[in-house]
Amino acid sequence: MSNKEIPYKIYLEENEMPKQWYNVRADMKKKPAPLLNPVTKQPITEDELSEVFCRELARQELDDTNAYIDIPQEIIDFYKMYRPAPLIRAYCLEKKLGTPAHIYYKFEGNNTSGSHKLNSAIAQAYYAKQEGLKGVTTETGAGQWGTALSMACSYFDLDCQVYMVKCSYEQKPFRREVMRTYGANVTPSPSMTTEVGRKINEEFPGTTGSLGCAISEAVEAATNQEGYRYVLGSVLSQVLLHQSIIGLETKAALDKYGVKADIIIGCAGGGSNLGGLISPFVGEMVRGEADYKIIAVEPKSCPSLTRGKYAYDYCDTGKVCPLQKMYTLGSGFMPASSHAGGLRYHGMSSVVSEIYDQGLMEARSVEQTEVFAAAQEFARIEGILPAPESSHAIKVAIDEALKCKETGEAKNIVFGLTGTGYFDMYAYQKFNDGIMGDYIPTDEEIEKALAKLPEM
Amino acid sequence: MSNKEIPYKIYLEENEMPKQWYNVRADMKKKPAPLLNPVTKQPITEDELSEVFCRELARQELDDTNAYIDIPQEIIDFYKMYRPAPLIRAYCLEKKLGTPAHIYYKFEGNNTSGSHKLNSAIAQAYYAKQEGLKGVTTETGAGQWGTALSMACSYFDLDCQVYMVKCSYEQKPFRREVMRTYGANVTPSPSMTTEVGRKINEEFPGTTGSLGCAISEAVEAATNQEGYRYVLGSVLSQVLLHQSIIGLETKAALDKYGVKADIIIGCAGGGSNLGGLISPFVGEMVRGEADYKIIAVEPKSCPSLTRGKYAYDYCDTGKVCPLQKMYTLGSGFMPASSHAGGLRYHGMSSVVSEIYDQGLMEARSVEQTEVFAAAQEFARIEGILPAPESSHAIKVAIDEALKCKETGEAKNIVFGLTGTGYFDMYAYQKFNDGIMGDYIPTDEEIEKALAKLPEM
Repeated sequence: MSNKEIPYKIYLEENEMPKQWYNVRADMKKKPAPLLNPVTKQPITEDELSEVFCRELARQELDDTNAYIDIPQEIIDFYKMYRPAPLIRAYCLEKKLGTPAHIYYKFEGNNTSGSHKLNSAIAQAYYAKQEGLKGVTTETGAGQWGTALSMACSYFDLDCQVYMVKCSYEQKPFRREVMRTYGANVTPSPSMTTEVGRKINEEFPGTTGSLGCAISEAVEAATNQEGYRYVLGSVLSQVLLHQSIIGLETKAALDKYGVKADIIIGCAGGGSNLGGLISPFVGEMVRGEADYKIIAVEPKSCPSLTRGKYAYDYCDTGKVCPLQKMYTLGSGFMPASSHAGGLRYHGMSSVVSEIYDQGLMEARSVEQTEVFAAAQEFARIEGILPAPESSHAIKVAIDEALKCKETGEAKNIVFGLTGTGYFDMYAYQKFNDGIMGDYIPTDEEIEKALAKLPEM
Repeated sequence: MSNKEIPYKIYLEENEMPKQWYNVRADMKKKPAPLLNPVTKQPITEDELSEVFCRELARQELDDTNAYIDIPQEIIDFYKMYRPAPLIRAYCLEKKLGTPAHIYYKFEGNNTSGSHKLNSAIAQAYYAKQEGLKGVTTETGAGQWGTALSMACSYFDLDCQVYMVKCSYEQKPFRREVMRTYGANVTPSPSMTTEVGRKINEEFPGTTGSLGCAISEAVEAATNQEGYRYVLGSVLSQVLLHQSIIGLETKAALDKYGVKADIIIGCAGGGSNLGGLISPFVGEMVRGEADYKIIAVEPKSCPSLTRGKYAYDYCDTGKVCPLQKMYTLGSGFMPASSHAGGLRYHGMSSVVSEIYDQGLMEARSVEQTEVFAAAQEFARIEGILPAPESSHAIKVAIDEALKCKETGEAKNIVFGLTGTGYFDMYAYQKFNDGIMGDYIPTDEEIEKALAKLPEM
């Protein structure tokens, strides 16, 4: 197979699409630490989790023993509407860079949510519907998750209430309209409609919000309404499970052409895309079958892996969610109002955190302006206008390809292009006008937020 | 092949992609009428056309004898970045409508220009580069053509100057930023930077512009700059030639699964998408090989086929372009400021016009609000947020599918989904808020504009 000419875009056939999700926790020798009840500080039970999440999703959240989980047929059918996502060989970028490296990217932007988020949204909406719920509440940062969930809920005729981080709500007025077109209600967060929102507004007047705040509000809204549950688009292990479809398809596409990845790169906010992309590859690593260089890329403005601490922390600013052991900047950390809203999260998936802690993955942080420069270069060469979040991975993929140019190595570089930037033109405008800044928190800021980690 | 299960999305393999464009004029027994020199009213020559267009494009414009024209390898390579476009079986829409019809749509929105326009943009930029030009000028309505041309020019390192219809420029500020990200200069039209723009502004104070105005300005700008030519995204026969890739791929995908289309539907503005989609099918009709029901869908606000006159007219408001025989509302017709900017053109491709005049095609006009209702329904069921222009075809496809429900016929309905609506959220917002209107010109308005057709 290895001499087969590789097309610009590798599409799997429908019958080659994965029928099971892959749960990397099952194969990890040292498992991610368990979620803890924030009051008792004991491992949380399925019953406790089910007060906030759907029962089946609570089960998936706690399952670290089953490696493969069947994807329900209804979800497979929905996946067929926009999947398989293409694995694209970046022939044009390679040529422009003059690198001997072979660059591949898994493009998850070919759906209206504009990102990979739909992979988990449709699963979560499906289980909510199965359980007979009326609706779900959630938070959204850049708006991709909110859009994805709106689409999924509209498909299953569920009510959808979205708390959108105020900073993104203001920068992306049209995101709200997409969600409304899909029938969702959208509220800027922190709002005055929840107790926790009012409290945060009081403590941080004029705050532009954060994912952590919005999560707290959405959880409160879910628990205060009969027939509602909360759903989350990242961080959780259940989300990584659903997102494993990205990595499974990527690996199947590479295998189809006999290509062995050398370097795998993903942007890291809460970890859903990164975790989904790398899961099957990490699985091979922990089973001793293969080795890969895996790189997580995060913004310098919110550097949880590179400057955070591996400790138990709250997942949300309001401290209503379970405690999770993760790389964190502290749940009180308020990231600067950058243009990669999807990466403005103080913590990180516990699975990704544990993978990082075990040395199975590296992490790098990059500045916003260099990310947009890479985004613009990529757009002009590869034709796709990338989301700012995704462009973090582009930046490092280009860096690695240029290293190959120096060394003359024809490495296979694979990165996740999580989505498109059509709703990020306000940010591109700032970049085009040369007035985009970089935001790097001081050591003092980070120490201050880390000082408030919960006592264990 | 006919019993092969049809996937949700049919992607051709790279080696199944067309290597030639199809020129339907070559097979038409009665050819479209020739373009005329606006001064002499004699058929325009290649030399005359080459003052405005690139030489090779002028040649293609006048070629009504060669049925197949090789696609240059550089263009094929660029096509591979975003093509083949999927032919999607609308299983979910069929189920929702409860129709026995099989609905297919050719989705051209999977590229950053958001539409099929890139198919011709890359061809025109390629020939401009081959000719050693510095840059090109153009107009854009909804912004899709301008974006496509910006992308193509950026790829070939050509300067790109875009006159954008003011109405769209104001409704879609972020469109401008996409074009700027690709390095283009964007000017709202009518502007004060050209003679014709100043004249139109004087004659119609406060006008929101039209494609006809913007064309005049772009042509003037091209002829006033050394090393520049004008390029156009629709109407012209060369554009239909390039867009035949849509129809060729559609037919190849249907053939692959043994499906014979019964009804083919496309939205009609200048005719580029419609003409490209239907060309190979019309070719079969005029060669007596097959029969199809073909339906052009236009907005009631700009009904050139259904209420216009088949006559020689100017292609632009400023009357600087060649005269073309076409269905027209008169080059002075100023369409209302609707939300389908790409369909606000007073005329129609001469090829499409002749096909219509020969009775090979039907035409229907639809109202804006019913189009957005269809768009919303489609978005919620099929997951893709369609452009307002494309949604005209959706509306009629749904109508035809519902007729099949009444009669019980399992017809194969194929429509062109030309693009996505990510930059049309202002319009969706109006629809979501219930404040969108319909605009239907009076007979007097149309008669007044038609009274000014050139004397022949």
